[in-house]
Amino acid sequence: MGDPAGIGPEVIAKAWAARDAAGLQPFFAVGDARAIERVWQGPIARITDLRDVASAFGSALPVLTVDDAGEIVPGRPDADGARCALHSLELAAGLARSAAASALVTGPVSKAQLYDIGFTHPGQTEFVAERFGVAKDNAVMMLAGPSLRVVPITTHVPLAQVASLLTIDLIVAKGRATARGLRRNFGVETPRLAFAGFNPHAGESGALGREEIDVIEPAIALLREEGIDATGPFAADTMFHERARAQYDAAICCYHDQALIPLKALHFDEGVNITLGLPVVRTSPDHGTAFALAGTDRAEPGAMIAAIAMAAEASAHRAACPQL
Amino acid sequence: MGDPAGIGPEVIAKAWAARDAAGLQPFFAVGDARAIERVWQGPIARITDLRDVASAFGSALPVLTVDDAGEIVPGRPDADGARCALHSLELAAGLARSAAASALVTGPVSKAQLYDIGFTHPGQTEFVAERFGVAKDNAVMMLAGPSLRVVPITTHVPLAQVASLLTIDLIVAKGRATARGLRRNFGVETPRLAFAGFNPHAGESGALGREEIDVIEPAIALLREEGIDATGPFAADTMFHERARAQYDAAICCYHDQALIPLKALHFDEGVNITLGLPVVRTSPDHGTAFALAGTDRAEPGAMIAAIAMAAEASAHRAACPQL
Repeated sequence: MGDPAGIGPEVIAKAWAARDAAGLQPFFAVGDARAIERVWQGPIARITDLRDVASAFGSALPVLTVDDAGEIVPGRPDADGARCALHSLELAAGLARSAAASALVTGPVSKAQLYDIGFTHPGQTEFVAERFGVAKDNAVMMLAGPSLRVVPITTHVPLAQVASLLTIDLIVAKGRATARGLRRNFGVETPRLAFAGFNPHAGESGALGREEIDVIEPAIALLREEGIDATGPFAADTMFHERARAQYDAAICCYHDQALIPLKALHFDEGVNITLGLPVVRTSPDHGTAFALAGTDRAEPGAMIAAIAMAAEASAHRAACPQL
Repeated sequence: MGDPAGIGPEVIAKAWAARDAAGLQPFFAVGDARAIERVWQGPIARITDLRDVASAFGSALPVLTVDDAGEIVPGRPDADGARCALHSLELAAGLARSAAASALVTGPVSKAQLYDIGFTHPGQTEFVAERFGVAKDNAVMMLAGPSLRVVPITTHVPLAQVASLLTIDLIVAKGRATARGLRRNFGVETPRLAFAGFNPHAGESGALGREEIDVIEPAIALLREEGIDATGPFAADTMFHERARAQYDAAICCYHDQALIPLKALHFDEGVNITLGLPVVRTSPDHGTAFALAGTDRAEPGAMIAAIAMAAEASAHRAACPQL
C-alpha cells in the first residue's frame, strides 16, 4: 500500500473499483485497512488467508491488514506510517517470494520518512533486490508506458558524476538484464535494445565528448557478440518520436532524466516501474506519495491500474516459459 | 535554401505547394534554382527584384537565384554546394537585415562541408548573430512546437562540461533574452519561464547535486527581482507532460538533450528553431540536411512550413509593437 498517508490507499481502491473495465486479475492490498477507509467509501474485505482473495475480490477489495499505522491523517506522513509501509512491503515481498502471491506491486513511499526510521536502502527497488538476493547492478529499473520502455543505466546520482560511473561492465550488465527481462516479463522473443548516447548528437564522433567511443560503443559490441540485438549509440533527442520508438523494445539511457523525460512527457499518468532481474515480478506506479493530493479524492489511478495489469501479464509470461 | 544537395530545396518547394492550405504569406527562396528543379516538377519564377515576389508567388515559387552550386547531385554534398549555401545565407541575411525582407528562414546546411570551406562559426545561428552585431550569450536558440517551447542554456558541448559552464550570469542572460523574445516575437505579454533543474529530481535540496542551489536558484531570484515571471528549478522529468506544459510559456533547460528530447518526442516533424535576441526574425526547421532522403521525394515539409509561418507571425508581432 505504500505510505498510508499518501495516495497509495486511494489509487489501490480506485483500481479495484475499475477492475472490470480494466480487466484486472484478482489482487489484494497489504497495509493498514483504515488508511483506505479514511479516503474511500467502498467495500473492504479484511482477509487473513490468501485463499479467500479470489472469492472476496468480486464484491470487495481484499486487504491483508497490517494495523499498525497509528493515527492516519491523509497528507500528514509520520513515523508510524513509515513503519507500517515498511512492514507492508516486507510482508508483501515475502508472499511474492514464497509464491503465495504471483507478483508484487508496491505503492509509493516517503523516502525521507523511511530514512528517519532507519531504512538504509536508496529505495524500495534496492530493498526488494536485497531481499531477493540479487546484486544491485543486476536489478534493472525499467519504466514502461504504452508506447515506450526506458532503462536508466544510472539513477539517483548528481548528473556531473554520471560520466565517471558509466563503465563498459555496468552498461553490459544493464543490457543483458534488460534483454533477459524483456523475454521473461514481456514475452519479447528477440529484444531490440537501442542505446542512447551520453553527449549531444551522441558525441559527433568525439567532437562533443568521448563517452560514446570509450564506453558505450565497446559495451554494445560486447552485447552483440553475445547475440543481443543492441544498436546505437543514437543521438538521444532523435530516439523518442513515434517512428523511432517503433524500432526498439527498450531504450537504454545513460542517466535519470534522459530516460524519464521522454517517458513522462509521453505517458505521465500511465507509467509503470518494473524491476527486471528479480526472481519475482515487481511493478510500481511511476509516481510518488503526492501527499498534497491525499484525501482529496483527486488522485488518478491510471498508473496503479497499469502496474497491476503489467504485474499480472509479466507473471503469466514467466509461468508460460519458466525456462527463460 | 541551405545545402543544395540536402532536403532544403524539396521542403521549400513543398511548402510553396502547400501555401494555401497552410495560409502562408508570400516568401521567396534564395539559392541555386537548379537544386529545386532537380527534385521538383512545379513552377519556378526566377526573380531579380524583390518587388516581383508578391505577384509571382500565386503561380510559381519565386527564387532569387545564386547559380554557383556547381554540379548538384541530391544526397551528394560537395564544396561547391557548401559555398552556394553560404552565399545564399549571406544574401538572405543581408536582405532581412536591410528590411528588404521581413524575416529570415534558413534551410539545413552541412556543418562538416561548411567547415571544409573555412566557415569558422559553430552553426548558422552564431553566424547570423555576428552578422547582426549581437553577442553570442544574448542570442538565444529557442525550439518551438505547437505545445512546447524550450531554450537550452548550453548547446553543443560535451555533457560532462555543462556543470562548469552554468553560471548565474549566463542563466540570467538567457532568461532575460527569452522573456523579451517571447514578448517581441510571440506577443506573450507577461512571459512565464519555467527553469529545469540540472540534476535528477532537481537535486533534492542538494542531496543529488548542488547546481540548483549554487547557480539556478540565484539566477531565478535575480530574474524575479527584474520583474520576470521565472519559476523553478523543477525536476526536469515532471515538466513536459500536458498539464505541466500549460503552466509556462517556455522551459529553460540546462543542456541540449534536456531541451531537445521532450521537444522532438512531442513534435518531431513540426519543430521550429527561432533565434531570439536578434534585430530581425530568424527561424529554421529543426531538422538536418537528411542527405539520405534527398532526391527521393519523401522529405516531410511540416517543419519548413511551420518555420515560414512562425517567421511571418513573429515579424507581424514585431511590426505591431516596435517599442518592445
